[in-house]
Amino acid sequence: MSGASYLISDLISGVLELSRGRLPAEARCGAESLRVTSFAPLAEAEGENLAFLSNAKALREAAVTRAGAIVIREQELSAIPELAGRPVVVTPNPYAWFAWASQIMEGGILPDPVPGVDPRAVVEEGASVDPTARIEAGAVVEAGAVVGAFAWIGKNAFVGHDAVIGSRVRMYAGVKVGDHCRIGDRTILNMGCAIGGEGFGFAPFQGEWVKIPQVGAVTVGCDCEIGANTTIDRGALDDTVIGDGTKIDDQVQIGHNCRIGSHCVLCGCVGIAGSTTVGDHCVLGGAAMVNGHISIPAGSVVGPATPVLSWGKERDTLVGFYPSQSERQFKRTAAMILKLGDMRRALKALEQEVKALKASGPSGS
Amino acid sequence: MSGASYLISDLISGVLELSRGRLPAEARCGAESLRVTSFAPLAEAEGENLAFLSNAKALREAAVTRAGAIVIREQELSAIPELAGRPVVVTPNPYAWFAWASQIMEGGILPDPVPGVDPRAVVEEGASVDPTARIEAGAVVEAGAVVGAFAWIGKNAFVGHDAVIGSRVRMYAGVKVGDHCRIGDRTILNMGCAIGGEGFGFAPFQGEWVKIPQVGAVTVGCDCEIGANTTIDRGALDDTVIGDGTKIDDQVQIGHNCRIGSHCVLCGCVGIAGSTTVGDHCVLGGAAMVNGHISIPAGSVVGPATPVLSWGKERDTLVGFYPSQSERQFKRTAAMILKLGDMRRALKALEQEVKALKASGPSGS
Amino acid sequence: MSGASYLISDLISGVLELSRGRLPAEARCGAESLRVTSFAPLAEAEGENLAFLSNAKALREAAVTRAGAIVIREQELSAIPELAGRPVVVTPNPYAWFAWASQIMEGGILPDPVPGVDPRAVVEEGASVDPTARIEAGAVVEAGAVVGAFAWIGKNAFVGHDAVIGSRVRMYAGVKVGDHCRIGDRTILNMGCAIGGEGFGFAPFQGEWVKIPQVGAVTVGCDCEIGANTTIDRGALDDTVIGDGTKIDDQVQIGHNCRIGSHCVLCGCVGIAGSTTVGDHCVLGGAAMVNGHISIPAGSVVGPATPVLSWGKERDTLVGFYPSQSERQFKRTAAMILKLGDMRRALKALEQEVKALKASGPSGS
Repeated sequence: MSGASYLISDLISGVLELSRGRLPAEARCGAESLRVTSFAPLAEAEGENLAFLSNAKALREAAVTRAGAIVIREQELSAIPELAGRPVVVTPNPYAWFAWASQIMEGGILPDPVPGVDPRAVVEEGASVDPTARIEAGAVVEAGAVVGAFAWIGKNAFVGHDAVIGSRVRMYAGVKVGDHCRIGDRTILNMGCAIGGEGFGFAPFQGEWVKIPQVGAVTVGCDCEIGANTTIDRGALDDTVIGDGTKIDDQVQIGHNCRIGSHCVLCGCVGIAGSTTVGDHCVLGGAAMVNGHISIPAGSVVGPATPVLSWGKERDTLVGFYPSQSERQFKRTAAMILKLGDMRRALKALEQEVKALKASGPSGS
Repeated sequence: MSGASYLISDLISGVLELSRGRLPAEARCGAESLRVTSFAPLAEAEGENLAFLSNAKALREAAVTRAGAIVIREQELSAIPELAGRPVVVTPNPYAWFAWASQIMEGGILPDPVPGVDPRAVVEEGASVDPTARIEAGAVVEAGAVVGAFAWIGKNAFVGHDAVIGSRVRMYAGVKVGDHCRIGDRTILNMGCAIGGEGFGFAPFQGEWVKIPQVGAVTVGCDCEIGANTTIDRGALDDTVIGDGTKIDDQVQIGHNCRIGSHCVLCGCVGIAGSTTVGDHCVLGGAAMVNGHISIPAGSVVGPATPVLSWGKERDTLVGFYPSQSERQFKRTAAMILKLGDMRRALKALEQEVKALKASGPSGS
Repeated sequence: MSGASYLISDLISGVLELSRGRLPAEARCGAESLRVTSFAPLAEAEGENLAFLSNAKALREAAVTRAGAIVIREQELSAIPELAGRPVVVTPNPYAWFAWASQIMEGGILPDPVPGVDPRAVVEEGASVDPTARIEAGAVVEAGAVVGAFAWIGKNAFVGHDAVIGSRVRMYAGVKVGDHCRIGDRTILNMGCAIGGEGFGFAPFQGEWVKIPQVGAVTVGCDCEIGANTTIDRGALDDTVIGDGTKIDDQVQIGHNCRIGSHCVLCGCVGIAGSTTVGDHCVLGGAAMVNGHISIPAGSVVGPATPVLSWGKERDTLVGFYPSQSERQFKRTAAMILKLGDMRRALKALEQEVKALKASGPSGS
């Protein structure tokens, strides 16, 4: 945290600008002229802090917070009489407002880097680096690559031949972007992620595996985030594609020729096999495992640790992980799972017997 | 893609050579003198493209393709009257033929690199680098290491002390091969993979964990492929071993002292705990998780997202992931799983009651 | 292995020192003056080897071993008459004794590195590097960072701004420690791990995701081990914390704001979502997947491949993975899982019918 203080009215106009006019807020009861230093949780906030109420469960905490001002929706405000007369920032989406205001207080998500190519970096002849970009020590930019305005290529990072790094892209230490791959503007690539490894394609032949050349690349959209040590493989012929605004967590693996839509969220440890399409605005829970060659409609949700073998045409929420249990119960139920067929047969047999009994019984005689 | 064109007869002789005589093909109806530029899917191919039919489901597409020539098996060819008189390449394995022919059209999978040690690379005294090898900027080769003929050590890659890198090995940017590890000829190591991290071995002592030294190394065979950010740990005493021709996808973890056979396929996100043996020609689906200290026979198959605790002596296909469901159904069935024991008991009780009823019923009286 | 030989009495005093007096051992029957070169398994050991018996299952092997001396507990020794008069090392914890003695025989886990900053390393102005530390070629230490005594920063590793690397820390090739992160003394960071990637935090807004700044860091305790390509994300406001003595395997992902206790073991491919607390001395099996915002009590155990959604207040062992089966059985049982509700309903109906039958039957009439 920077330690500086911010006038709430400035934060309001700043968030309005960052949201391109979509998230207005109104300061009331003197909030506009207050200065705050940071956000803090409702229960811990003091006079110099902003707090925000993002869900109705915390009404009680909001009523007694000591925060300098509270960011809140109109409906929750009117439900908390204790807040009458207190400085508030009223906005339809306090959580998003908090996110953008925090960005302002932290000096921006993607500030201008100190420009220049470190003498211990390697920029090969034929590469094009914008004069406002920063290339740090140990980084390598291969021939034919293009690095855009205000892009920031971190220590020991790698930009392959003919790769295109958009403006204001942030590549952290040790990030690798392979030949011919393209990274859209303002995308953040976290430490150690590898964009453009070879796709995994082999033809079986007499018990061996013949490599199929992988000559596509990877295209990552604008305003994306790719997690640490995540891998996205290059396509066999066409590119693997990640849409604009999609956020991908750490340790995710995306196979060749996948097409991930825009504004998706892929949580940590997700794996997606090759040639699968994920529509816009999908959310995949942590460690979800998605089969290859399937199509997930826009707006779908996959639960955590859920294997997805196929998908219908309707958007849906698909969940499937074995419920965890105490070790003792686990052993019993796991054994039972394997006897489900027997149980089903016994049940059917019993149904027949009962039917026969009823037919021959007193009421039937 | 290169843009160049290729005489089909040259491709046929090239594939025969690459397959070491094992995959012949015959050009018919003028195919031998046709020139093609690339492969394309049956439905999209034009006159300058080759297309191939790899499974019987696409007979219809093959009948109407506009490809310059079709690579096909004898039996499918005779089943498609529309292809009579069309230029074809007849071979027993069109998919493998496509793979090798594509390799030719792309200039080879592992072409000779431009040789030499970049002045910004670090080759320590006592390392041995073949004059035909290429060591790129930022790469490090430690003392005692050996880099073979035509090997290609990419940007910022690392070769540890006394490691041996075989001929024509391709190490992409940021690959790490630890001390004493050995990589066989023509093996491809994708970006960021780490061969030879320390094995995970600790002795419990009074609630703490005492490290057991890991002094083995990793031996990777010839003609392997290791995926981006995959990790293979060094053995405790002996080496962890990967057999010839085995293909390993991204984000795979292989624990210390594992012995993976030859010509296996390990899909993305697979994890194998320590000291497990996997026989030759096994296929492990994505995110399969294999227990330590077990042995999987040659030729076995593990389904995706399948936990493998143990294995019998027979080769088999082992599958086990909880079926994914709509969120609503998931909640119901997950609860039911935990009541399987109750259900079983109720079923048994009912069986007894029905038996008693039958004994005392009209037909029994 | 070093090839040198060691006097058993020296090993006994060495282990006593490494264990800070907690693991004594007694040499009997001439063991104290024997020299040994290494450990070997009971079945393979020869006269120059030590062997150890760590569990009662191997009594038979111990009885016939040809090892020069056997490390054994008093109770097993008295149960094996064949060992009477043989040189033995009697200690309450043979496995831990083996671990420490092996450390001695291998020259120590964290020996003093050859000190100095390689001229091809980058140490930015304002960084502080202890004169006993070693910074290898291609490594980068940013301004404000502190590198402690005998720390060893490997090839192409990265230490961010104001990061603190404790004494005797070992960072292998390509390890990345982000800005402001702290690594405790004697911690080992394996190849390619990334400490301090940005946390994964976004506020939803009109179908898009607004980044929440991640301004916390990561604090890793003393005597930890972090596996190859493992990732630990920085906190949103506060730090993500890993306690002393905790051992984390490869390919593990730990989300922002997690607090992992001391002396835990996290096996390979574990994933923990954000803001989860794991108490001291917990063990998480390979590929266990833990939900965010939950708390796991000290001493708990999670089985392999187990998804953990929530946890009660008691320490427990939680297990849950779908049992793997032959492909044929899998298809049947997976279908059955989805019919559990139907089965339960049929069972209930049957119970009613049997009840009615009993009421109206011979014994009831």
